[in-house]
Amino acid sequence: MRAFVTGGAGFIGSHLVDRLAASGYSVVVFDNFSTGRRDFLDGARDRCRIIEGDVLDRVRLGAAMAGTDVVFHLAANADVRFGTHHPEKDLQQNTVGTFNVLSAMREAGVQRLVFTSTGSVYGEPSVFPTPEDAPFPTQTSFYGASKLAGEGLISAFCEAYGFQAHIFRLVSVLGERNTHGHVFDFCRALLTDPSQLRVLGNGRQRKSYVYVHDCIDAILLALDRPSRRLNIFNVGTTEHAEVNDSVRWISDRLDVKPAIEYSGGARGWVGDSPFIFLDTSKLRALGWVPRVSIKDAVIKTVDYLVEQRHLLDSRP
Amino acid sequence: MRAFVTGGAGFIGSHLVDRLAASGYSVVVFDNFSTGRRDFLDGARDRCRIIEGDVLDRVRLGAAMAGTDVVFHLAANADVRFGTHHPEKDLQQNTVGTFNVLSAMREAGVQRLVFTSTGSVYGEPSVFPTPEDAPFPTQTSFYGASKLAGEGLISAFCEAYGFQAHIFRLVSVLGERNTHGHVFDFCRALLTDPSQLRVLGNGRQRKSYVYVHDCIDAILLALDRPSRRLNIFNVGTTEHAEVNDSVRWISDRLDVKPAIEYSGGARGWVGDSPFIFLDTSKLRALGWVPRVSIKDAVIKTVDYLVEQRHLLDSRP
Repeated sequence: MRAFVTGGAGFIGSHLVDRLAASGYSVVVFDNFSTGRRDFLDGARDRCRIIEGDVLDRVRLGAAMAGTDVVFHLAANADVRFGTHHPEKDLQQNTVGTFNVLSAMREAGVQRLVFTSTGSVYGEPSVFPTPEDAPFPTQTSFYGASKLAGEGLISAFCEAYGFQAHIFRLVSVLGERNTHGHVFDFCRALLTDPSQLRVLGNGRQRKSYVYVHDCIDAILLALDRPSRRLNIFNVGTTEHAEVNDSVRWISDRLDVKPAIEYSGGARGWVGDSPFIFLDTSKLRALGWVPRVSIKDAVIKTVDYLVEQRHLLDSRP
Repeated sequence: MRAFVTGGAGFIGSHLVDRLAASGYSVVVFDNFSTGRRDFLDGARDRCRIIEGDVLDRVRLGAAMAGTDVVFHLAANADVRFGTHHPEKDLQQNTVGTFNVLSAMREAGVQRLVFTSTGSVYGEPSVFPTPEDAPFPTQTSFYGASKLAGEGLISAFCEAYGFQAHIFRLVSVLGERNTHGHVFDFCRALLTDPSQLRVLGNGRQRKSYVYVHDCIDAILLALDRPSRRLNIFNVGTTEHAEVNDSVRWISDRLDVKPAIEYSGGARGWVGDSPFIFLDTSKLRALGWVPRVSIKDAVIKTVDYLVEQRHLLDSRP
């Protein structure tokens, strides 16, 4: 079996490539290396071929996809927070990019797709924990809007051309190789100046997180079960935590006691959802059990970033 | 007040322009004339300026929008049925086009938007009549997916930049100046050969329709009421009709007795929803009452097309 993984050199993508390679897949990684790293693929190098390319480059994408059995489309602009600075980036990288992947699949005769979507498609939901069939959502971020548009395109391709797709709506993912998000930002700030920490919002935002290996388990498990044409799963733990909890866990692990300054408000930035907590009973009914708690996922991420401090310096 | 109407020379757009002009608006029509017609604007000519341009031409769009108070974004590829023939057309014209309109508004400092979306965003819903907050829908057509993506972008722009938007999810619209859809197709076929009619699907598809003047009433009424940042309304009658009903009404009006041949199946084409029936109680609570029944709307459309037979010949 040949798997084609867009964003395969990224945080989640590289872990997926490791697991696919270990299961006997031959893997083609397609990544523009905007945030992905070649060294993330060191462990899978023998069973994977790396193609540097962007999903907006349709010619390169199409040529690379020949002979593929299943596409894992993870490439995306994942910077939710900066959407308002460049709304077109989400539209292009996430929506048009997904259309290009689907079109390339159609041309190459590939019919199976796995797509990493986001809990952000629920906007600010009215139901908690939020199930996959929650009331019609209102988008609050360009990131969520771009992923929702990607989901819509995937559904339409399934209906029109007989594709089979698995869509995973992920909460924030933590763990080794994490390259963005609040744990990354807080670690970088505290290792630079342990005396103070600026927190966006009031620190009371409640979020759910999932450990990256639990996330990969979820994807591979769902793929292995009897499936319909279109399969949508929330992925997250059954817990949620406050940003303040996370600040405490990180500070304790780094053994620092920063003075906390809050920017204020219930949201850290435009499009920040004050409460994210997904209903994952559909996935758990398949037998999936997340093994790592939010606290342990935060600590594992901190330990990794301390060990790989060069990563903290490599981002703008 | 200056209104900017994309697709303002089209079926719904030109009626809207008539009404806006009659209410004292100065109107700028922005239309690529792919399906719009200059003669549809004859009645409003004194109070409207026509700019030929495509929403994919960002430079022209941006230049045309200066000085606008409110944008009515109606321009779209509305051919639901042919989505699978050219999926990129919906993505570009409807999703990217909507992004361009929003970006141009931002640059021009325009903050009020009216958007014509579609009941197709509900896919094949599980609840009838389908309310605005129906369960998270699955897209079955490229048209629906492209409009859903447009709605998501609009919501994100409202959240990020303080825009105020009214989104109307329309059922199929009938009436004078109708230029596509089943009544148009059936009239053309029966006026060419009254002895037979080919119907896509089994004829049992149930649809809701709304008369174009009732539709414009709904839009203008909702705009006139106290509004939130984002306002979403279904627009449709409280009735639905079978395709077979419509065939009978059209045949009777044309005084023909065609032999009916069905292509078969519950759907007329990929993405055709076998049952469309929207809950419009939110709109009716504002005082909106559709005045024309589905049957009368069909008959008015037939009468218009018979009178304007050149329109039937002008489409490919």
